[in-house]
Amino acid sequence: MSLTLEEAKKMIAASEKKAKEMGVTMVIAVCDNGGHLIALHKQDGALLVSIEVAINKAYTAVVAQMPTHELKAIAQPGTMAFGIHACRNIIIFGGGLPVKRDDKIIGGIGVSGATAEQDAECAQAGIDAL
Amino acid sequence: MSLTLEEAKKMIAASEKKAKEMGVTMVIAVCDNGGHLIALHKQDGALLVSIEVAINKAYTAVVAQMPTHELKAIAQPGTMAFGIHACRNIIIFGGGLPVKRDDKIIGGIGVSGATAEQDAECAQAGIDAL
Amino acid sequence: MSLTLEEAKKMIAASEKKAKEMGVTMVIAVCDNGGHLIALHKQDGALLVSIEVAINKAYTAVVAQMPTHELKAIAQPGTMAFGIHACRNIIIFGGGLPVKRDDKIIGGIGVSGATAEQDAECAQAGIDAL
Amino acid sequence: MSLTLEEAKKMIAASEKKAKEMGVTMVIAVCDNGGHLIALHKQDGALLVSIEVAINKAYTAVVAQMPTHELKAIAQPGTMAFGIHACRNIIIFGGGLPVKRDDKIIGGIGVSGATAEQDAECAQAGIDAL
Repeated sequence: MSLTLEEAKKMIAASEKKAKEMGVTMVIAVCDNGGHLIALHKQDGALLVSIEVAINKAYTAVVAQMPTHELKAIAQPGTMAFGIHACRNIIIFGGGLPVKRDDKIIGGIGVSGATAEQDAECAQAGIDAL
Repeated sequence: MSLTLEEAKKMIAASEKKAKEMGVTMVIAVCDNGGHLIALHKQDGALLVSIEVAINKAYTAVVAQMPTHELKAIAQPGTMAFGIHACRNIIIFGGGLPVKRDDKIIGGIGVSGATAEQDAECAQAGIDAL
Repeated sequence: MSLTLEEAKKMIAASEKKAKEMGVTMVIAVCDNGGHLIALHKQDGALLVSIEVAINKAYTAVVAQMPTHELKAIAQPGTMAFGIHACRNIIIFGGGLPVKRDDKIIGGIGVSGATAEQDAECAQAGIDAL
Repeated sequence: MSLTLEEAKKMIAASEKKAKEMGVTMVIAVCDNGGHLIALHKQDGALLVSIEVAINKAYTAVVAQMPTHELKAIAQPGTMAFGIHACRNIIIFGGGLPVKRDDKIIGGIGVSGATAEQDAECAQAGIDAL
């Protein structure tokens, strides 16, 4: 079971709305349960680097089965997974969340454009819309 | 001047509608005048390889300033640009179209999922919706 | 629904057996329905390049939803998809087969080490064992 | 002299057994004395990111001629090899072990899926089975 395009659109619309309320411009990406991109919207004026970062945050949340801010905690110098940020397409700061149904990962959402906390808040708004 | 997210959404909606009428499932990507992704939708069931191909078709149409089916003609063995498909992110078959306004390129659209002709037809539907 | 490790092992064992009967040494890779590697065995003496080729054949069969020898037919100069071999991890010669259940792709198998025909025959032996 | 496929299978079987006893799901990779993959099994439910990490742990143990947890110690900020994690395919946390015979490296084993300590314990179980 994976997210459908309709579900991805609904999630992105909610994240976009949240970003507007917060006065920020975001790139929002949603991927399936294999980490493959389903949908992406880049709000006008959002950072170009955020395209890759949003895609990779969604991917990371799926392949690591955890929010990117949790991966951050174990990827600092001296902690268990320091160095994992050098793996292909892995992002170790907030804004990527796994999407679950019946406790199974069905996809991921990644948001990039503002602070990691704001990114994560927008990503959560997407999940809440499901 | 580049395409806005609202314009990209309108284009993709038209391409999605066209794909449904044709009975195919597509990935549709729209990029800005720098070749950077603005929006992407992957219809349920579309080929996974089409994600990369659609993005790269939109990119190629912008950076080569021509439809990808025109690039195809000059990228065959023995013709002028043979080998260009090995350049980063370049696609040399139909389905990528530049988007112009007042004769200036303001973005690109790439569609992948069916035959190159069907891909190009869906991409054109997106441009017609502008 | 995707292939399990037990199913992948069974497939690989059958491919290995087939390779021994044929007197060749192969690398056999099985991936899930997202193109991610589940299992790989490299027979002693098999070509080192076959590691990457086998993995990519299994991947290609999943993401293109067709046997790699079918992709080959449409990826020649002058045909529809010429140039697609330059996409990330795409292989356009025989030896990669999608694995289906109830008409849905649940994974892929890729074999590399001998001729494309022999590779495909070993891959088919793996599927027949399911 | 390098590990054979039969030896690699025996190692992986022991690591799989250990993982089941520990109640975790792992990806286990074994490579030859050149760092090239010989065999890989991904237990059902194991993290997708663990595929790349397990392969790279086995590789790192061979090319650096030391367990990855020893490399970790000299790869932290301020220590001798800080930055080496950015080299291609290098992993600097536990779970990768070189495999030796008569004091010569004949291959490597990498395990990923749980804590670095658990990963290393499973890798050791593989070596103990030789």
